[in-house]
Amino acid sequence: MTAALLSHPCMSQDALKDCRDADFIASMLAFELALVRAQERIGAVPSGTTADMAERLEHHAFDVAELARGVASGGNPAIPFVKAGRGALPDHLKRYWHQGATSQDVVDSALMHLLTPRLGAIDGLLERCRTAGMALMRTHADTPMVGRTLMQQALPITFGAKVAQWTVGLEQARRRLGEVADQGLPVQFGGAVGVHSGWGDEGMALMQAIAQELGLSCPILPWHTNRQPIHTLQTALDAVAGAVENLALDVSLLTQTEVGEVSEPSAPGMGESSSMPHKRNPVRCALIRSSARRLHGHTSVVLGAVAQPLERGLGEWHAEWVPLTESVLLVEGALEQAAVLLEGLEIHPERMAANLAVTGGAIMAEPVARLLTPSLGPERAKALAADAAEQARQQGRRYADVLVSLVQEGGDAVNGGADASTAASSQASTLPSAEAIRAATDPALYIGSSKHQVRAALEWLQR
Amino acid sequence: MTAALLSHPCMSQDALKDCRDADFIASMLAFELALVRAQERIGAVPSGTTADMAERLEHHAFDVAELARGVASGGNPAIPFVKAGRGALPDHLKRYWHQGATSQDVVDSALMHLLTPRLGAIDGLLERCRTAGMALMRTHADTPMVGRTLMQQALPITFGAKVAQWTVGLEQARRRLGEVADQGLPVQFGGAVGVHSGWGDEGMALMQAIAQELGLSCPILPWHTNRQPIHTLQTALDAVAGAVENLALDVSLLTQTEVGEVSEPSAPGMGESSSMPHKRNPVRCALIRSSARRLHGHTSVVLGAVAQPLERGLGEWHAEWVPLTESVLLVEGALEQAAVLLEGLEIHPERMAANLAVTGGAIMAEPVARLLTPSLGPERAKALAADAAEQARQQGRRYADVLVSLVQEGGDAVNGGADASTAASSQASTLPSAEAIRAATDPALYIGSSKHQVRAALEWLQR
Amino acid sequence: MTAALLSHPCMSQDALKDCRDADFIASMLAFELALVRAQERIGAVPSGTTADMAERLEHHAFDVAELARGVASGGNPAIPFVKAGRGALPDHLKRYWHQGATSQDVVDSALMHLLTPRLGAIDGLLERCRTAGMALMRTHADTPMVGRTLMQQALPITFGAKVAQWTVGLEQARRRLGEVADQGLPVQFGGAVGVHSGWGDEGMALMQAIAQELGLSCPILPWHTNRQPIHTLQTALDAVAGAVENLALDVSLLTQTEVGEVSEPSAPGMGESSSMPHKRNPVRCALIRSSARRLHGHTSVVLGAVAQPLERGLGEWHAEWVPLTESVLLVEGALEQAAVLLEGLEIHPERMAANLAVTGGAIMAEPVARLLTPSLGPERAKALAADAAEQARQQGRRYADVLVSLVQEGGDAVNGGADASTAASSQASTLPSAEAIRAATDPALYIGSSKHQVRAALEWLQR
Amino acid sequence: MTAALLSHPCMSQDALKDCRDADFIASMLAFELALVRAQERIGAVPSGTTADMAERLEHHAFDVAELARGVASGGNPAIPFVKAGRGALPDHLKRYWHQGATSQDVVDSALMHLLTPRLGAIDGLLERCRTAGMALMRTHADTPMVGRTLMQQALPITFGAKVAQWTVGLEQARRRLGEVADQGLPVQFGGAVGVHSGWGDEGMALMQAIAQELGLSCPILPWHTNRQPIHTLQTALDAVAGAVENLALDVSLLTQTEVGEVSEPSAPGMGESSSMPHKRNPVRCALIRSSARRLHGHTSVVLGAVAQPLERGLGEWHAEWVPLTESVLLVEGALEQAAVLLEGLEIHPERMAANLAVTGGAIMAEPVARLLTPSLGPERAKALAADAAEQARQQGRRYADVLVSLVQEGGDAVNGGADASTAASSQASTLPSAEAIRAATDPALYIGSSKHQVRAALEWLQR
Repeated sequence: MTAALLSHPCMSQDALKDCRDADFIASMLAFELALVRAQERIGAVPSGTTADMAERLEHHAFDVAELARGVASGGNPAIPFVKAGRGALPDHLKRYWHQGATSQDVVDSALMHLLTPRLGAIDGLLERCRTAGMALMRTHADTPMVGRTLMQQALPITFGAKVAQWTVGLEQARRRLGEVADQGLPVQFGGAVGVHSGWGDEGMALMQAIAQELGLSCPILPWHTNRQPIHTLQTALDAVAGAVENLALDVSLLTQTEVGEVSEPSAPGMGESSSMPHKRNPVRCALIRSSARRLHGHTSVVLGAVAQPLERGLGEWHAEWVPLTESVLLVEGALEQAAVLLEGLEIHPERMAANLAVTGGAIMAEPVARLLTPSLGPERAKALAADAAEQARQQGRRYADVLVSLVQEGGDAVNGGADASTAASSQASTLPSAEAIRAATDPALYIGSSKHQVRAALEWLQR
Repeated sequence: MTAALLSHPCMSQDALKDCRDADFIASMLAFELALVRAQERIGAVPSGTTADMAERLEHHAFDVAELARGVASGGNPAIPFVKAGRGALPDHLKRYWHQGATSQDVVDSALMHLLTPRLGAIDGLLERCRTAGMALMRTHADTPMVGRTLMQQALPITFGAKVAQWTVGLEQARRRLGEVADQGLPVQFGGAVGVHSGWGDEGMALMQAIAQELGLSCPILPWHTNRQPIHTLQTALDAVAGAVENLALDVSLLTQTEVGEVSEPSAPGMGESSSMPHKRNPVRCALIRSSARRLHGHTSVVLGAVAQPLERGLGEWHAEWVPLTESVLLVEGALEQAAVLLEGLEIHPERMAANLAVTGGAIMAEPVARLLTPSLGPERAKALAADAAEQARQQGRRYADVLVSLVQEGGDAVNGGADASTAASSQASTLPSAEAIRAATDPALYIGSSKHQVRAALEWLQR
Repeated sequence: MTAALLSHPCMSQDALKDCRDADFIASMLAFELALVRAQERIGAVPSGTTADMAERLEHHAFDVAELARGVASGGNPAIPFVKAGRGALPDHLKRYWHQGATSQDVVDSALMHLLTPRLGAIDGLLERCRTAGMALMRTHADTPMVGRTLMQQALPITFGAKVAQWTVGLEQARRRLGEVADQGLPVQFGGAVGVHSGWGDEGMALMQAIAQELGLSCPILPWHTNRQPIHTLQTALDAVAGAVENLALDVSLLTQTEVGEVSEPSAPGMGESSSMPHKRNPVRCALIRSSARRLHGHTSVVLGAVAQPLERGLGEWHAEWVPLTESVLLVEGALEQAAVLLEGLEIHPERMAANLAVTGGAIMAEPVARLLTPSLGPERAKALAADAAEQARQQGRRYADVLVSLVQEGGDAVNGGADASTAASSQASTLPSAEAIRAATDPALYIGSSKHQVRAALEWLQR
Repeated sequence: MTAALLSHPCMSQDALKDCRDADFIASMLAFELALVRAQERIGAVPSGTTADMAERLEHHAFDVAELARGVASGGNPAIPFVKAGRGALPDHLKRYWHQGATSQDVVDSALMHLLTPRLGAIDGLLERCRTAGMALMRTHADTPMVGRTLMQQALPITFGAKVAQWTVGLEQARRRLGEVADQGLPVQFGGAVGVHSGWGDEGMALMQAIAQELGLSCPILPWHTNRQPIHTLQTALDAVAGAVENLALDVSLLTQTEVGEVSEPSAPGMGESSSMPHKRNPVRCALIRSSARRLHGHTSVVLGAVAQPLERGLGEWHAEWVPLTESVLLVEGALEQAAVLLEGLEIHPERMAANLAVTGGAIMAEPVARLLTPSLGPERAKALAADAAEQARQQGRRYADVLVSLVQEGGDAVNGGADASTAASSQASTLPSAEAIRAATDPALYIGSSKHQVRAALEWLQR
């Protein structure tokens, strides 16, 4: 393709090593040999043909440049490959080569064959993410931090609860892709128009046999223009990308200089800036987010190509190859980053604590108001809670201290008069104690179901 | 919205009736009441509160125009709704209204509540499609027609086999969406930052209880910014759209004037042209294809919004509502058309037969060559088969007749000399009989596994 | 449509008022009357026909519900409209109604007619943005703030320079859309198959005349299936959306609690949280970002429908209507928010200053190192600059103070020994003065071309 | 990247030769040298530095594999490149290398530098298309063929008029992209945070000077996160893709076996099927359509990345490189196919004539009805025209003959009685002559403004 350096950082280099031209050619060859072997079994070709053919072709050096020239005129890589393969065979074997198959059988099956091991690799990376996520959940189940909605500080959560969200999302996507992998990617075999022309009823059995040979699943019917299997696979990959992207977005936000609650794991040269010595760029997040965006673009191509005309696409099929293949490599690349990120994420609980305090207590106004509501009524309670936060900020005092004084003054300084719904006379007796007030301003005591959520998520993750 | 007439034809009108503002408001109310009821059960609100509240609100006339004004400043429809609801309650009930919930709990749950019945309706329409498809498959299991690849005539298939492709695709998508429906769309309940602030460990139990009240499923955790459930739902809808689109694309092509193998069912006014009396436009296909295209656009929005920041989206969440809701209506609308299309599709086997003959036999050149290969070798066999097709076309004779003459002339007229791999001397003795040749040119005898495929598909469809 | 409340907050309500069914019907009628008037001018219909027809139809109450029923069978809104229009005319006028036109002429022209005023409204909003942006640029041309790359603090810029980026982007998009508006949206008129069947050479003149009547531009040819005009319009709208989105993304990030450098303008009820009194949500940003995301989804539909088959689309055309129309309303809605945002944005220079200091000076390490390089060589200079930042942070001292001491110690404490490229002996004499060092740590003196950029941008914006 | 064979057929191989890693590295180097030269001119680096540096680096063999390793940790290709470049320089030059620039300056400028010549190549291909299209328009200005709407036969057009549509669409897209090319792709230079930190007011002049050195345009401001230039370029490329796709879709439909009105130019091996000797696949169309689909996917990525945060993207920027670069190669590849297609398209006027006759005349029912309307009234005229078509089809007679007999029978057989609006008594006298009737059934005489359109389009195309 075009300058590899531009695509490089987002894709899994490990995976790329197994998805080059030579690998794809090997997968096409694997299909052709499986086809012959299946035919040999039912006596459609002479015994020994497969072994004979395999011997001649498995070490044959296909000329990639020549195939490349042929692919432009044929429109797909199977056409020059089949020609080259036939050319490399002696006459007595030529007629058994590619017998009853069509280009799409070769390309689709080869792609499924090529991508199958990648699903395993992706699953492995997702397991690493899960393990790392679970460790963080356990360690930080009750590490308080501020929860942020619309990027504004809202109320406390725990870091464990946040990691639970990431980890559950990743695991949901893992299980979804896992179902696709467990079912097996399907072989393609239908011949020229998808009905095994020339084979009659044996066609379906051949399809089954080839699937077994290749370790692929056997579809209900050939799927030349019923692309549901591709839709299922691509959207499952997209779901994984979305789950990793979700993690990367959060980490990007939490690593901001002014937030600083987590840092990407440091590694030599990683994220350094050529000009600014103090910077550590969240490069892993950038790469993950970039991969995910490119993947969503690929998905849009695949979705738009689900409807294919009659017995073979006219461009729709051809448009699928690169998006699907690159999606796998992009997901795998993103997960490699994500696994390292989760395994080595640096957590800064002291910054989390500092950020909880940054509003002078205002983020605790909600629980304080809740505490005061029985005695003051909801409106006055809210007003007092907000007022105290404002005073605390202006005077640089602790929120709890201001609150206690205000409450001890009878709460009367605020908003004058009780709510309609509250008997003014009964207030003094029911006002909460200073201790209760202080407790209500402690974020660490107002983390809701955070710990419960971590437990519940751990249980589900281990299931 | 904007001019309904522009959107109208693509969406299910039946479904729209249940997805208007009033319905959405009813779903928001259902959530709020379920929330109170769940709290009443655990003693968090006084006994009788729910009934009291329900009585006052279930017949309350929410002012849609006022809500609409409020939604622009709040940013989501729950904010003015909650305000209006509280305003309609007496003081002693106000404090139990919306207690511990956040806007996103209301909107997400209301959407899931609103859309759940639609999944049932979609399933019903897909069953109609399946039934109609199976009937066509049975009737036309051996109705020969030409298979077309890259829109060129290729080799025979049967119409039953083609319908099997459509029907299997639709059913695969049905089962995929069915799994989503069977699991149940999830309730949303997490409070301000997703950790049930103020509820502690009871939060998770409340979430469970609200789910039961609403007939929704209970998620592992609140999913404010883990949008995997939405991704799963949207892509399953997209798969259905793709399957219907696949059907519509084929029907569009087969109804072309020059092809004419099927017609859309006629209905008064359906597909008529204002100016051209002879036309019958494949309007149902146009509407289906249009719906599917719009839906794919919606899907791209949803995929791009899977990653949402921290504890609440900043636009990402807001971007989901319309795409998701309209996708459901577009799928349902497309399926209404598809069901009628499949149930009433007019099949023209005589045109299928005529089209099989249109190349003067050339499409049977492949089986003829196959038949002649043992005696003539592959190259001469191919050449003779192609030559005969050309002569048949030019002389207006039947392909079989030309072939028989050519073969009886010894096949020698063609290409002179036998293939290297064929013993010339043995030819005459092994040349196929005129009868065999005629059989080889009969498309109806060269339909491969078409009938077997129909059987296999029927079996799978009934499973 | 579906529940308007869900779509409501993102769209311009002002614009919606002019894009309802009645408006679209009025635009269809305007086209039909322009068609008759043009024909009357060339004598193709009797004199007075247009006035006669207009009188009967301009106050005719078209039954929207009936049109809606008809649209589903006809596949587009022109079919029932033309029928209803004809039905409302006396016999002597019926034959001159819709003469020589096709549905697509009506719908395309009506859409262009409906949307033309919106382009003016969008332009007006973009001018408001420009004016507001320019005011901010002037006021804050030298208000220092920290520049952030990959969301990490990097080096100083000025707030004026940042606003210049937003404003230039918006203005570039405005000029691009302005060119589209200046050229005029094109009328559509080609008749059944786009070649003015039955009109001969007069067809092209009629097209010209109808364009003039409607205040639309006259295209080179009818454009039934050459959708370049729609592509141009939609992508220009998308560019505007992108420019507003860019603004909203930055504002979202700058309003974060921990950053706090700007706030959305406050307005009663705007951005308030139902449960958390201390919060002010950046709701305008959320709505803008949501609109932009939905718009990009619509664009993907339009791009995918540029290729339309033969003389009329089969679903491709039908898929354009809603995406295009809603895109206009979404852009206009987003710009209404953006104009208010820019006009009322609250700027907090003191927070900008505080954030510049948050790294203890580390962000000034680059200019400091630059200053020290001539005397210490690049490597030692960088090391000393970084070291001082670390000490300043740890000891809570000012960066400049630490630097001055370190430099006065001869710079020798750091990294020992001079760079290979630097003559150690010459160092002392050339070490910068304490004053120079202090200046180098002052962000306000290290704003590069910020002010120049503001001037250059202002000049271009006023051009 | 992944298996090139999969991407190969869709991309321009010529263009690829100039967009490989070595080319991209050369462009990055060109930027760095232009930067030094610009600085040398203003005296910021010693005289002779550029020449010295160029001499050492222009023949330096950058180790692509090593850069590839570095790119993953730095996150973009400039980081390892700058490091490697510096490493290859002697100490006295090191400090002037990459001075004041940031990675994004290098990558953005290098991309613009790399892609600029491609815009010229694309323009050249579009000119070939225009020339070929104009030749076809002239030759076939009055070659009648059937126009098809919703893929149904509608009314006659001429092939010249159809080609005019394709050619105008391509030329509109050419002019749009031409404006982008004429303005020049912009250089990028802003330094670390886009404000030329350390350069002060000289920064803007340097930007101007570097632009001149590289033959790029000088932007208003650096555009690190204002991506309007990329949006403009990408959508202009997308418009070209859409115009070619439009051509390919039509050709695909017209080459269908049953239609056969045009054929792709034949070339050795082009479009041949491995198994079916009679087939000639429209491979060029398939490749064009596939390229366009992939390109639209790339566009969706670019549109979604227009909003970039603060002073540098966090993944958004990184996501642009491959989509943009590949889009250029895909457009160029598609146009190579399109040029050959238009230059060598085989036209079959006899098939066009035959297809005009395929409905037995029914497509001429509209002009016939128009002719008869003055004497019979619109309803009876329509009925007679339709009736005659039906009889002609059933009896295998010519439409004109049936019409003449029916009209001569007084038209009374049809529908009994005159329309209310027609004086029955005046009919006989005004019934059209047999000659007029025959003329009305001649498609070649009912081509509307086809010839005029061709003239108008030619004039515009030559402007």
